[in-house]
Amino acid sequence: MKAGERFVDRAAVTCILTLCLGCLHVIALKQQLFSRRGGSSSSTESPISYETLYFDQKIDHLGFLEDGTFKQRYLVADKHWQQPGGPILFYTGNEGDITWFCNNTGFMWEIAEELGAMLVFAEHRYYGESLPFGQDSYSDSKHLNYLTSEQALADFAVLIQNMKGSLPAAQQSPVIAVGGSYGGMLAAWFRMKYPNIVVGALAASAPIWQFPGMVPCGDFYKVVTQDFARSGYNCDANIRKSWEAINNVSSTASGLQWLSEEFSLCAPLKNRNDAVGFKNWLQETWVNLAMVDYPYEANFLQPLPPWPIEVVCKHLALDPSVSDFQLLHGVSEAAKVYYNYTGSSSCLNTSQTATGSLGLLGWFYQACTEMVMPMCTDGVQDMFEPEEWNFQAFSDECYAMFGVRPRADWAGTVYGAKDIASHSNIIFSNGGLDPWSSGGVTHNITDSLVSIMIPDGAHHLDLRYSNAQDTAPVRHARALEVKYFREWISQAKLHPPPRP
Amino acid sequence: MKAGERFVDRAAVTCILTLCLGCLHVIALKQQLFSRRGGSSSSTESPISYETLYFDQKIDHLGFLEDGTFKQRYLVADKHWQQPGGPILFYTGNEGDITWFCNNTGFMWEIAEELGAMLVFAEHRYYGESLPFGQDSYSDSKHLNYLTSEQALADFAVLIQNMKGSLPAAQQSPVIAVGGSYGGMLAAWFRMKYPNIVVGALAASAPIWQFPGMVPCGDFYKVVTQDFARSGYNCDANIRKSWEAINNVSSTASGLQWLSEEFSLCAPLKNRNDAVGFKNWLQETWVNLAMVDYPYEANFLQPLPPWPIEVVCKHLALDPSVSDFQLLHGVSEAAKVYYNYTGSSSCLNTSQTATGSLGLLGWFYQACTEMVMPMCTDGVQDMFEPEEWNFQAFSDECYAMFGVRPRADWAGTVYGAKDIASHSNIIFSNGGLDPWSSGGVTHNITDSLVSIMIPDGAHHLDLRYSNAQDTAPVRHARALEVKYFREWISQAKLHPPPRP
Repeated sequence: MKAGERFVDRAAVTCILTLCLGCLHVIALKQQLFSRRGGSSSSTESPISYETLYFDQKIDHLGFLEDGTFKQRYLVADKHWQQPGGPILFYTGNEGDITWFCNNTGFMWEIAEELGAMLVFAEHRYYGESLPFGQDSYSDSKHLNYLTSEQALADFAVLIQNMKGSLPAAQQSPVIAVGGSYGGMLAAWFRMKYPNIVVGALAASAPIWQFPGMVPCGDFYKVVTQDFARSGYNCDANIRKSWEAINNVSSTASGLQWLSEEFSLCAPLKNRNDAVGFKNWLQETWVNLAMVDYPYEANFLQPLPPWPIEVVCKHLALDPSVSDFQLLHGVSEAAKVYYNYTGSSSCLNTSQTATGSLGLLGWFYQACTEMVMPMCTDGVQDMFEPEEWNFQAFSDECYAMFGVRPRADWAGTVYGAKDIASHSNIIFSNGGLDPWSSGGVTHNITDSLVSIMIPDGAHHLDLRYSNAQDTAPVRHARALEVKYFREWISQAKLHPPPRP
Repeated sequence: MKAGERFVDRAAVTCILTLCLGCLHVIALKQQLFSRRGGSSSSTESPISYETLYFDQKIDHLGFLEDGTFKQRYLVADKHWQQPGGPILFYTGNEGDITWFCNNTGFMWEIAEELGAMLVFAEHRYYGESLPFGQDSYSDSKHLNYLTSEQALADFAVLIQNMKGSLPAAQQSPVIAVGGSYGGMLAAWFRMKYPNIVVGALAASAPIWQFPGMVPCGDFYKVVTQDFARSGYNCDANIRKSWEAINNVSSTASGLQWLSEEFSLCAPLKNRNDAVGFKNWLQETWVNLAMVDYPYEANFLQPLPPWPIEVVCKHLALDPSVSDFQLLHGVSEAAKVYYNYTGSSSCLNTSQTATGSLGLLGWFYQACTEMVMPMCTDGVQDMFEPEEWNFQAFSDECYAMFGVRPRADWAGTVYGAKDIASHSNIIFSNGGLDPWSSGGVTHNITDSLVSIMIPDGAHHLDLRYSNAQDTAPVRHARALEVKYFREWISQAKLHPPPRP
């Protein structure tokens, strides 16, 4: 089964190499949405143990011509479950191997005992082992046609109904959806669309408003820039200057060679096209750092020191008078904080910015269909080269690659855009350092659609294992989240769903 | 365009002839759900005038491989619309020609002025003129694959978003969904799934619980039976006895001939198989009468007198001692009330029970996929021959006909079954005489999920034009419905949806 997963990832890498040069805002940014969590160095981390199960899901819940099924993987941990009727915390898997999410969503593991909860981690179709057509799942747009969030939500709903049907002790169990990033969007949407299945949802770092017409396209990069601006002298200014410096230096063959050596690149830059790819790779590096700017040493995309942006910025604390070469030497040192913190990398590979077995190709297909998230930069309010959001160009890229065109308005229509006040029992948690907070719900909408802000938090920090270095806001956030969980569970026990 | 519609109906009739003998509970009952309204004889009926428009809808909202569009028909009447921001009453079209629903939903036409409302009637895909693949729409299960309630709801949502986008005066207009029968189910589900699009819904005679495991399968026929029991001496008892009488009489060739002549059948009965079909036709006749048992003369399925079941029962007020032939003579006279009230029928056609251009084949496909509505009879609590609900046989029929199999649990999972309390702003109105009330919501669920019962009302009487013969309960129901509409409109004006 690992083979299937690798198949996807290998294809994804090819895809990125193919597309990355011409579609910075298509690829380099969209792929960031991948929920990146890794093993924590926390001493409170407890050993986890779960059962791996498979459920026969319909390939197509929303049409009846295709009546085939596939094996959806899900993981169950019921060590602390209070039977009968104890709650179920249900992780709405996102675009990757579910074991990875399971192993690294410490928050759920840490609260299972106090809530007497069963933990379930359900894999998202087309990722990990849950491939509707096995090795052929990504072979063409016909096979990819069932990769939508609506189908994934239906998978979750049917799986839960089936578990309840086959486990008498779970029949009255209130289910709470939990997810981060795209998984957080799914958790929120799951509660919105299937309130009969889940009593509430924790949507951590879920940019449900990062869609056309909902937030300004430049906000994402503004947050990235602010993270660097606050982390060291001239840090954002020098990154802003670095693009022109790269343009200058890369205009000659000797400059390209110098850059390749200075950055210890595995594949030397050969021409201006390579230099464009090089800039995209750097931009993606800064974005990644903004997502994982955690207060303690951790290993997600890469092994990193505590508050990694501060460490990066030490190398960029240069005066405006420095030469292009001096500036780019600083940038090189900064990039190596991200790519070679452990000192084990012999060279830097510009074809990737993160390790990990994520379904990049799958996410890319989703971005090319429903998950249309406009991004833009102006070089003034952010530290990047100006680039407008160009939906038509994006659509053409998608069509060339998958034979499908994105539908810009669909997500807003089906998931309510900003008009979600009639729903209930959803926590939207966001980190102030996380660029994805730009598309998140960062204010209370009603008494039961609440926002929890973690000002010094990066991407879904609250879902991670607790850590001695955790700051007060994230500790408070987790406590508040558990408080809401308890309320929803009590509500459900007071008003159990009617039985037929 | 009329041709397309006729195409569907002609096919449907064929289908029924083909299937009806062996699938009473598949066809003869499911088809009853068609919302049957016709021209009213009320003197308050005002001339109606609307504009016919067409919108390019995606054939598949829920997948991206099929990117084609079709023309969805919708009708707009804005004579009384108060611009800007006046409300929109949006009829969620069901399984038939939308002009028919439009012309016969007098309630909406009568309240438009007092609410300053625009009226919109949106045709359901695969019915009337709104055929996704034109003449080929019903050609095979591949072309039928996009005939689902989820796609229809998405059509409605996208249409409203588009109207609001192109009509500045409608941008802040609260939209209220209105529908009857299956259209009422759609109205309720539309509010549940798209509360960002509609502020509330009137679901008239909408059997949203007529699905597996939600209500006893025999309740539908119990209501039919009660309608006859209350309408005349021995009325239900004699119908209960009539099946055995038909069996006795039809056991000989001369008996078959007698039956054919007594009932003035256009096509004489030739064998026992024909006799089975004859019984099905009669059973369907009694069900139809239960649906349209209105207090005034009307013309729906057939032209009928006021309180037609009372008139029917006059012919069935026979003592238990009568012979089979005497009993069946009474049944024959009773059936002719339904089929020949005007005296213009030269013979009775057992291949149909109603006139009207309804998309029977389309509804049959829907029943064979999502709309699985168990029905059964026991001959004790109802007046029909005992017949159990047999899902497997039903599924096999569906597979033979369409190459698809019904999914018994899906409607409950996706639309919440009995666990809908977290939704809001839905009126469920039901008539006590209407057999479909057996699957309806007949009690208040919350303050804003309310039931309105019309004890002496038949199928969505409240949606019809007002009439001098209307009883107090239906007058009260309509007034209450308007009161809720006003509340929802006020709520929406107080809390308009946020703009991006």
